[in-house]
Amino acid sequence: MRVDGQPRRTLWPAATLDALFVIDQRQLPHRLAIESLASVEAVFVAIRDMWVRGAPLIGATAAYGLALQANVDASDDALRGAAMQLSSARPTAVNLAWALQRMLRRLLPLPSALRADAAWREAAALADEDVATNQAIGRHGLQLLSALQPRRDGVLNVLTHCNAGWLATVDWGTALAPVYQAQAAGWKLHVWVDETRPRNQGASLTAWELAQQGVPHTLVVDNAGGHLMQRGQVDAVIVGCDRVAANGDVCNKIGTYLKALAARDNGVPFYVAMPLSTLDINLHDGLRDMPIEERSAREVTHIGGRAANGDWVEVQLAPDGCAAANPAFDVTPAALVSALITERGVIAARPDDIAALAAATP
Amino acid sequence: MRVDGQPRRTLWPAATLDALFVIDQRQLPHRLAIESLASVEAVFVAIRDMWVRGAPLIGATAAYGLALQANVDASDDALRGAAMQLSSARPTAVNLAWALQRMLRRLLPLPSALRADAAWREAAALADEDVATNQAIGRHGLQLLSALQPRRDGVLNVLTHCNAGWLATVDWGTALAPVYQAQAAGWKLHVWVDETRPRNQGASLTAWELAQQGVPHTLVVDNAGGHLMQRGQVDAVIVGCDRVAANGDVCNKIGTYLKALAARDNGVPFYVAMPLSTLDINLHDGLRDMPIEERSAREVTHIGGRAANGDWVEVQLAPDGCAAANPAFDVTPAALVSALITERGVIAARPDDIAALAAATP
Repeated sequence: MRVDGQPRRTLWPAATLDALFVIDQRQLPHRLAIESLASVEAVFVAIRDMWVRGAPLIGATAAYGLALQANVDASDDALRGAAMQLSSARPTAVNLAWALQRMLRRLLPLPSALRADAAWREAAALADEDVATNQAIGRHGLQLLSALQPRRDGVLNVLTHCNAGWLATVDWGTALAPVYQAQAAGWKLHVWVDETRPRNQGASLTAWELAQQGVPHTLVVDNAGGHLMQRGQVDAVIVGCDRVAANGDVCNKIGTYLKALAARDNGVPFYVAMPLSTLDINLHDGLRDMPIEERSAREVTHIGGRAANGDWVEVQLAPDGCAAANPAFDVTPAALVSALITERGVIAARPDDIAALAAATP
Repeated sequence: MRVDGQPRRTLWPAATLDALFVIDQRQLPHRLAIESLASVEAVFVAIRDMWVRGAPLIGATAAYGLALQANVDASDDALRGAAMQLSSARPTAVNLAWALQRMLRRLLPLPSALRADAAWREAAALADEDVATNQAIGRHGLQLLSALQPRRDGVLNVLTHCNAGWLATVDWGTALAPVYQAQAAGWKLHVWVDETRPRNQGASLTAWELAQQGVPHTLVVDNAGGHLMQRGQVDAVIVGCDRVAANGDVCNKIGTYLKALAARDNGVPFYVAMPLSTLDINLHDGLRDMPIEERSAREVTHIGGRAANGDWVEVQLAPDGCAAANPAFDVTPAALVSALITERGVIAARPDDIAALAAATP
């Protein structure tokens, strides 16, 4: 996608294959900070501290982390140790583990001397495949959207939660890929952007990337979506996901479930863009068994932003000593999901359909 | 209720009856700022700019505003003009208009010379009645809560949205009155406090007043409530209201509707504390006809808090030039409301029950 009019991906290797460049997304929307990561430890920190976030981008970043490891010590133990460390950086995103497993499967059968070269190529292949995956999700999602009748003004209104756009992936995004393809096809459309407390990925990332691509959008607080749906101002909800269970339950950013409830109550379709890498076929009952990351209370009690003088300042919102809970994800039951948009087509969020797709996936 | 251990109301007249003292609630939770309002204009600004907020407190504040007007010019035109001005300060709260109408009905039949004295007495009576109303809501709500079985640990978990506590009223609060009475009765209970974006009345007001009263509580983002209910961590939701229609539809802070949907989906009772002054018997269909205040986009794109150096600082959260929509309220359909807790008892959110209560109300 475009940044300041130039095409860019969200991560790319140094030409010398000794570092990975990423955007420190914590500094958006106020500053585009491109950082060089030159060690497994640096990649671990970038994932743990959410310089990069979004399940597909986390996976690609971790893959390059193993390539960095292979540069310095490509032994079985070293690669497995690095994979263990990287996989612990974020507990919920299933394709962090998926990307690391794929890298290990590719590398461990090779002689040590060939592993570094293979690792950089495999990470690049994984990144390229993510781009192709998202383009395919975009095409399939566009077909779904084209069946909808805009409720007002001939403008298709899409609501999204969190950031499942370009910035959450290597390119294109998952939930936003259909939006970008609709834009490219010349549709009139408009996106309602949930700010997505507590980390405000909607306000700081989704709003920023939509502005960069020139897609009309309006920021709202997370509380507003139900009201907008009641008033007929939303034609479809599209969100990404961090993990989908075999029964179709969807784990995504905290608050997604509330939007799914409102969508059902108002007859608005609720679509989940699901790259197959986020499917966890071994997790049978999402609502019961999905692990939910509990993050720092400080993300709730404090918030950072740009002060009038241009400085980034963190301010306290809650009383001194106030206790806060911060579950980072919730689970939307499959019954509330109108369809899953995968790179291999649109399916129902039902165990049979999911199992069939998984069985047909190489 | 208590502030720093001392009993206090949220507003009180000067002993000389030439000013009204209120708390500038915009400065909470970081500073307890008590301000003197000495003119209708000052009262208008305090209501419009939300130094005071909460339907009952707005009504009582406006009533004292007319008393201030009566001090300087108690003619019919002057009182009516002041009432018109004050009623325009906030468009949604029905008991702003209710309080002003009550004052005019009391004052206009009197000779001008007697009006100022009567105005101060009537405003004081209105404030005292609000206290009695909230105590009665607390008693009736406590009976409802006592029928619930805590789902875990023997602790009753209540979730509330926005601030419908002491700070939203003259004393006790509406939604929190049953909580405070449960505390006084020695119950084990805990309150989940929605931060309530965009103005964060939960984080800054509800959390503060619960801490002042010593009620255990945990702050969460508005996105979290559905997840908490899925996990059995909420035994009841109690919210206040700004206006209730004749059909039982409830207008309250934006986001209330989403919590009501989650409560229904998880079998959690959803109670609305409704002083009869917030009932608008002439509004037949709340969902269709409730006017919804649209507030400044800046409340969404910027936020204020206390910086590390102790200064209050406003920071920008969204990209430069980002459009934002800010509907301040939403409407929860009557079908999602388990019961309305009024000062005259608990009723169903049904047209017949509401009409019967309205008919029996003097």
